[in-house]
Amino acid sequence: MKAELVSIGDEILIGQIVNTNAVFLAKELNKIGVEIAQISSISDQKEIIIKALDEARNRADIIIITGGLGPTKDDVTKQTLCEYFDDHLIKNEIVLEHIENIFRKYVTTPINDMNREQANLPSKALILHNQFGTAAGMWFMDQGQVFISLPGVPYEMEALVKNEVLPKIQQQFILPALHHKTILTYGLGESVIAERIADWENNLPEPIKLAYLPSLGRVRLRLSAKGAELEALKIQVNTQIEKVIPLIKDIYFGTEEDQSIEFLIAEKLNQLGKTLSCAESCTGGAISTRFTAHLGASSFFKGSAVTYALDSKTSLLGVESSMIDQYGVVSGPVASAMALGAQKKYKSDFALATTGNAGPTKGDLGQEVGTVFIGLATPDGVESFQFNMGNNRTRVIHKTVNQAFEMLYRSLLM
Amino acid sequence: MKAELVSIGDEILIGQIVNTNAVFLAKELNKIGVEIAQISSISDQKEIIIKALDEARNRADIIIITGGLGPTKDDVTKQTLCEYFDDHLIKNEIVLEHIENIFRKYVTTPINDMNREQANLPSKALILHNQFGTAAGMWFMDQGQVFISLPGVPYEMEALVKNEVLPKIQQQFILPALHHKTILTYGLGESVIAERIADWENNLPEPIKLAYLPSLGRVRLRLSAKGAELEALKIQVNTQIEKVIPLIKDIYFGTEEDQSIEFLIAEKLNQLGKTLSCAESCTGGAISTRFTAHLGASSFFKGSAVTYALDSKTSLLGVESSMIDQYGVVSGPVASAMALGAQKKYKSDFALATTGNAGPTKGDLGQEVGTVFIGLATPDGVESFQFNMGNNRTRVIHKTVNQAFEMLYRSLLM
Repeated sequence: MKAELVSIGDEILIGQIVNTNAVFLAKELNKIGVEIAQISSISDQKEIIIKALDEARNRADIIIITGGLGPTKDDVTKQTLCEYFDDHLIKNEIVLEHIENIFRKYVTTPINDMNREQANLPSKALILHNQFGTAAGMWFMDQGQVFISLPGVPYEMEALVKNEVLPKIQQQFILPALHHKTILTYGLGESVIAERIADWENNLPEPIKLAYLPSLGRVRLRLSAKGAELEALKIQVNTQIEKVIPLIKDIYFGTEEDQSIEFLIAEKLNQLGKTLSCAESCTGGAISTRFTAHLGASSFFKGSAVTYALDSKTSLLGVESSMIDQYGVVSGPVASAMALGAQKKYKSDFALATTGNAGPTKGDLGQEVGTVFIGLATPDGVESFQFNMGNNRTRVIHKTVNQAFEMLYRSLLM
Repeated sequence: MKAELVSIGDEILIGQIVNTNAVFLAKELNKIGVEIAQISSISDQKEIIIKALDEARNRADIIIITGGLGPTKDDVTKQTLCEYFDDHLIKNEIVLEHIENIFRKYVTTPINDMNREQANLPSKALILHNQFGTAAGMWFMDQGQVFISLPGVPYEMEALVKNEVLPKIQQQFILPALHHKTILTYGLGESVIAERIADWENNLPEPIKLAYLPSLGRVRLRLSAKGAELEALKIQVNTQIEKVIPLIKDIYFGTEEDQSIEFLIAEKLNQLGKTLSCAESCTGGAISTRFTAHLGASSFFKGSAVTYALDSKTSLLGVESSMIDQYGVVSGPVASAMALGAQKKYKSDFALATTGNAGPTKGDLGQEVGTVFIGLATPDGVESFQFNMGNNRTRVIHKTVNQAFEMLYRSLLM
C-alpha cells in the first residue's frame, strides 16, 4: 500500500515556507502501514495539478493533496478536482452551517459570499469534517484508488487526518505493518561504522533495511522492516539490534523509536523525579525551545536563562565578572558557573549551560568561531567540556544543542 | 528558465526530517531568476531515481538532485547517474587529496577504502568542490539540460550552491528577473481582504501575480512578478502596493522583501540604537531562538529569561509572588511585571514577556487553554494585552511569537 503526497502552492516553491505537513503525514501514514512513494510540491495551476495527479496514480494507491482550498481565487484545487473527476459542485448544508457557526463564534467581520462558497463541494466526494476551519476535506474513490484533498493549514489538516483520514484508510485497505527503529551513535563517521558492521549488515534478513543518517556530530542507524505482523517485526528488529550493539559498544548511545532525544531525557527525568534548567548563551534559547515544544514539559523543565549580553550572565546567573575577565566569556569556568547559576536560581537538580562563538567572526569573544563550552551541573557537582563545532552558525548552534542533550542523557543513564 | 528539485532519501519519506534544503535552494534560485517547477522527495532506489529524472526533465531545464552521496552502500545516486548518462567512474586526484586532507585535519579515525572511493566520480561530470565535506558535487550537461548532484548535508550543500552552482547557472543561461514582495496584514481574514481589494486584484497588470498566505492570525499578500529587468519589476510591484495600501490601511502592517519580521525588528532596533530582552513563559524560548538564529543578534538582543516554573518568575525576574497569588500566573499584571523584570535585569530598552496556557489542559494555571497575555515594556512604560490563541499547542506558541513580534514592531514604528 503506497501513498503519494502532493502539496499545492507556490509558497513552498519560492522557499517561503517549509513543507512540515509532509513530515506529519509521512509519520502518521507510516504508523498505520502506509509507505510514502513520493512527496511533491507543485504550483497551484490547473494543468500542473492534473499532470501531478496522473503521475501520482501511477505510483500510489492513495494520493493525498494538501493546500489550495482557501476561499480566494488564487486557490483552484476544488475546481480542478471537479474537472479531473468529471464532477460538479453542490451546496452542502452541513458544511454551510459549520462555516456560519465559525463566523458567528470566532470572526468579528460578517460572513461573505466567498466564505459561503466554501460549502459548495464536489458531488462525488465524501466530505470530511474540518472541525477547526472552513475548508472541508474531500475523499474521492476512482478506479480503486483514493484521492484525498485537505486544507494546507497545519492544525486543520492534522485534525482531519487523525479523526477522518486514518480511520477511513484503515477501514478501506488491508495494511501491512511497518516498523522503524533508530540506533544513536556518537563519535565515529559513517564509513568507519560501515566497515565495522559490514558482516552484520550483509547478513540482515530480507525484510530489514538499513540506512545511515549522519548529522551534526552523530550517526544514526535506522532499521526499517515491513511485514504482516507488527510484533513479529519488532522482535526481528530487536534481535538485529542486539547483534550489532557489541560491535559498536564504544559509540552506542541508545535507540529511538519515533522519539527524539529530548523525549528520552524528559522520560528519564520524570522517572527519576528530577528537574532541569538551562543557561544558554550561544544556543540562544534553542535548547529550551526543543523541550517546551512538547506537552508536559512543565513536569521537569524549570526554564532557561538566555544570557546573550555579557553582564546578564552576572545579573541573572550570578557569574562573577572577575571570572569572566580572567578566563574569558567563552571558557570552561564560565560554562560551569553558568550551569551552577541556573541550578541555583531555578532550584533544579540538573542544569545545562552553553557558551561559545557561533560566528561569523572572532569578535571580542576571545575564542575562534566554533569553539563552544558546555557545562553540566548535576546533584553531584559540575563539569565543563570544550568542543569545536565548525564554522557555520546554524551548525554550531544545533550541533551544540545535540551535544548538550547527549551529555545530559549519558549522565542520566549513569 | 525552470528548475526542479529532487531530494533522495527515505528520511524525508518516513517523516524523520523536514526538507529544509528545498527552502534554501528555492530561495537562492528565485533570487537569480530561476523558477522552481516542482520539488520532489523520492526513495534512494535506482529505478525510482531514473524515473524521477525522466519526469523532471520534461518540466525543467535544470534538475538539482540532493542527497544519496554518502560513502556507505545505501547511497546509490552516483552509480545511478553513471547509468543514466551512460558513464563510468574515474579517480579524481584533486578530490582524493581533499578527502585525505579532511581526514588528516578533522577525523580521529584513519581513512578507509569507502572514503577513498568517494573520489571516484563520473567521467562526464564537471566536479564541484565541496569545501566542507567529502562528497563532491557533480554537474552534467545532457541535451541542453543541466543535472546537478549535491550532497544532502545542509551546510555542505549550501556552500556548494553559493560558490559553484549559482555562478555556473548564471554563466550558462540568460535569466529573467523574478521579484516577490509580501504585504503583512493583521486582523482580518483572507476572504474579507479579498472582497475589499477585488477591483485592485482584477486590474493587476500581466506580470504580477497575487497570492493570499493566511497563517496564525495574520494574512500576507504576496505579489510576484517576472520580467526582463529587476528594477522595472520592483517599480511595478511598488506601484501596485501603493495603490492597495489605502484599501487596507487599518490592517496594513508593512512589507517584507525576503525578510522576516525579526529581521525588520533587528534593523529598527539597530537604527535606533536600542536593545531588547524577553521574559518567556508559554513561548518557552521560541522568541529568543528566532532572534539569535541570525547573525549579529548580539548588537541589540540582551537575552531572554525562560521562566517555565512558577517560582522562577520571582527568583529570576523579581515578580512578586503575592502578585501571582492575587492575579494568577496567566494574567495581565504578571505579563507586565515579567516585562519590567526583564527590562531591569537585562538593562534593555524594550522587553517582551509572554505568559499563557498552551495546553493541553487548564491545569493549575487558572486560565483556559489558549489564553495568553503579552507584556511589552518600552522606555515610556509597560502595557499588557490578552489574546485567545486557540487550542492547539504548537499554534498557541507560534501565534504568540508572531503576535509579540507584531506588537513590538508596531511600537518601534511609532
